[in-house]
Amino acid sequence: MTRITLDTVRALDSDDPLAGFRDRFVLPEGLVYLDGNSLGAMPKTVPDRVSAMLHDEWGRHLIGGWLKDRWMEKPLALGDRLARLVGAGSGEVVVVDTTSINLFKLLSAALAMRPDRRVILSNPENFPTDLYMAQGLIDQLGGRHELRLVTEEEVAGAVDEDVAVVMLTETNFKSGAVFDMAAVTRAAHAAGALTLWDLAHSAGAFPVDLNGAGADFAVGCSYKYLNAGPGGPAWMFVASRHQEAAHQPLTGWLGHDRPFDFDLAYRPAEGIRRHVCSSPGILGLVAFDAALDIMLEADMGAIRRKSVALGDLFIALVEQECGEAGFTLASPREAGLTPPWRRGSQVSFAHPDGYGIVQALIARGVIGDFRDPDIMRFGFAPLYQRYEDVWQAVAELRAVLDGGEHTADAYRERASVT
Amino acid sequence: MTRITLDTVRALDSDDPLAGFRDRFVLPEGLVYLDGNSLGAMPKTVPDRVSAMLHDEWGRHLIGGWLKDRWMEKPLALGDRLARLVGAGSGEVVVVDTTSINLFKLLSAALAMRPDRRVILSNPENFPTDLYMAQGLIDQLGGRHELRLVTEEEVAGAVDEDVAVVMLTETNFKSGAVFDMAAVTRAAHAAGALTLWDLAHSAGAFPVDLNGAGADFAVGCSYKYLNAGPGGPAWMFVASRHQEAAHQPLTGWLGHDRPFDFDLAYRPAEGIRRHVCSSPGILGLVAFDAALDIMLEADMGAIRRKSVALGDLFIALVEQECGEAGFTLASPREAGLTPPWRRGSQVSFAHPDGYGIVQALIARGVIGDFRDPDIMRFGFAPLYQRYEDVWQAVAELRAVLDGGEHTADAYRERASVT
Repeated sequence: MTRITLDTVRALDSDDPLAGFRDRFVLPEGLVYLDGNSLGAMPKTVPDRVSAMLHDEWGRHLIGGWLKDRWMEKPLALGDRLARLVGAGSGEVVVVDTTSINLFKLLSAALAMRPDRRVILSNPENFPTDLYMAQGLIDQLGGRHELRLVTEEEVAGAVDEDVAVVMLTETNFKSGAVFDMAAVTRAAHAAGALTLWDLAHSAGAFPVDLNGAGADFAVGCSYKYLNAGPGGPAWMFVASRHQEAAHQPLTGWLGHDRPFDFDLAYRPAEGIRRHVCSSPGILGLVAFDAALDIMLEADMGAIRRKSVALGDLFIALVEQECGEAGFTLASPREAGLTPPWRRGSQVSFAHPDGYGIVQALIARGVIGDFRDPDIMRFGFAPLYQRYEDVWQAVAELRAVLDGGEHTADAYRERASVT
Repeated sequence: MTRITLDTVRALDSDDPLAGFRDRFVLPEGLVYLDGNSLGAMPKTVPDRVSAMLHDEWGRHLIGGWLKDRWMEKPLALGDRLARLVGAGSGEVVVVDTTSINLFKLLSAALAMRPDRRVILSNPENFPTDLYMAQGLIDQLGGRHELRLVTEEEVAGAVDEDVAVVMLTETNFKSGAVFDMAAVTRAAHAAGALTLWDLAHSAGAFPVDLNGAGADFAVGCSYKYLNAGPGGPAWMFVASRHQEAAHQPLTGWLGHDRPFDFDLAYRPAEGIRRHVCSSPGILGLVAFDAALDIMLEADMGAIRRKSVALGDLFIALVEQECGEAGFTLASPREAGLTPPWRRGSQVSFAHPDGYGIVQALIARGVIGDFRDPDIMRFGFAPLYQRYEDVWQAVAELRAVLDGGEHTADAYRERASVT
């Protein structure tokens, strides 16, 4: 293989059709930020948009903002905008509550829609909160249901007539491996089960096509690849065909058919609004709205192409520069430029000293993260990452190894300095 | 009775020990804002605090903010600060999710703690979302439970051995009438039931003493008398003695005993942290934190005294100036300067033309609100309201009546102009 040089990498940046987007984000000088899969960088428009909401809306209109500034409409209005990123239609997505709580709602709805079935099918590498929420729901329902965990490879074949719902995070949070959403959904439907997808590490990272895949339900967050800020509002998708049948237990007044009638009895609103429970947090929604502007401006196909190229470059450079150092690729090598996607927008390597290496990289301004037992995780956000960032990250990795900066002694030395 | 004059009212403002707080809030010139019971006014510190969080924390530290800027600790740290306003101890309050969702959690916990009992006792004038959430939970639990509604007067006497939990909003959202929390709690405990208080219209409005009353559980919002902004984060209280027994179904990863171990099985954290489900929305928490600074600086006894005086003045002026106009006081006349409180920090009048009158007042810059069927509701936020605002409100009310501005014709005329 041809050796990759800094010139090769700089040529990629020169030819990058998305290069102009980097300037739309706040990124500290010199930082190589490969953790947008945990918390996206801040779009420069967010502070002004939030400030405008505070001064011109809350400060000026007070309670009138709910109508004048359309605060009340934001959960559905943002949902409609986000829908375009995830292959959903108008009225199929609402921005509300948190990912876990939305998962609880839709898992409840799915179990109620399959009353004769008792299994929630998932995999042990699903993000733990999803498994915990399922456990909490099962306990609440009296233990009649079962959370059945099978490996990623086994999922599609494991859907039988006991399975009410297949609950999966599309992109594995450790490895970045991506389920074939269309294939798993077909298998689920063939066995009469529903599907509930967690798109935390998918939405904004690569093209998602919920309706193309025939998905039933989905949830996701806004603060990773969608750049809405720490703990930003979550969202949920309910396919049109299920909206009348999908009932969930968090029946708050804003999901009522006529909230301001203050009836004694709950009557769910038509459509996806019934999943809005409480007054929405406007600050978080405004930040998300500003972040969505940028995401909707970019071409998702171009995002995917760059994401794959960044990840491929990272793998090639680690192997070229640190080939002897004992790294094992913990992500799929082939990402996929057309569906089905195989690798999301992150690359993970396993290494016995992974924890120390990640700490030493952070000390050098290269931000990735570590997940037990030995996974070093690096995320690629094509809107604000340069190919040269990848070069820089691997150069710093080489320096960490050369200097023994990942050892416990070096870690203690750094700790004593700061 | 001595006639109240503008001089009387101005003398009250001159002697007001809380007068200096008004300048801490953004209030449009000329507006008489009597709707702080729906959405509090914006503290002037909020935009700067939010901006600092965006630029100095998210923008600079990115993912590092969760530790460096203590984002992760905010739900409990703010809970501890808020605890001082509601008579709770350290570790008994957490700021999280929404009021309705927190109600769902604690109602679930309460029912599970009283497995042999099947009744949730409430009143039909409870805020509807609380009743809806109870209905949603009962449906989910298979209909074994019953939501029993009795009048406010009957509640204390209606707690029998079937009642698992008494779920009440302490301050009636229409009338402003306040339950005797201590007496109802005693009656509930005597019959072996738990209590769950919604303090939406209480916290920040007058002194609340949860532990003094022996309350078991409580929930509340931040955006009314606590001024945290539209849809700001909610909070919940669990008495220390119940924290080990209180389990709830929304078992997200941040409520896990060791969230970053990513165990497969959920194990609840010690204490109130188990009720934190998901990554907290930091924007909303920062705004709430700024708003709490002001509230904690003020003396809650002084707030109560002024609240009562504002409400009493409003009643007296409406009766003095509009005595013949057919208004019926729909709030308790006696507010109570020592517990038990009788009237919260709002005054409601019933009037057959209430809707039109409220609309005409809004057109004149006096912001109250209307609740079916005939309730005109006016809230008093002692930190930013002047006695002269009350005078002004009643003067405008008189002008509305004199000019027939509350009629349908006048309403249509205004609508055609704007």
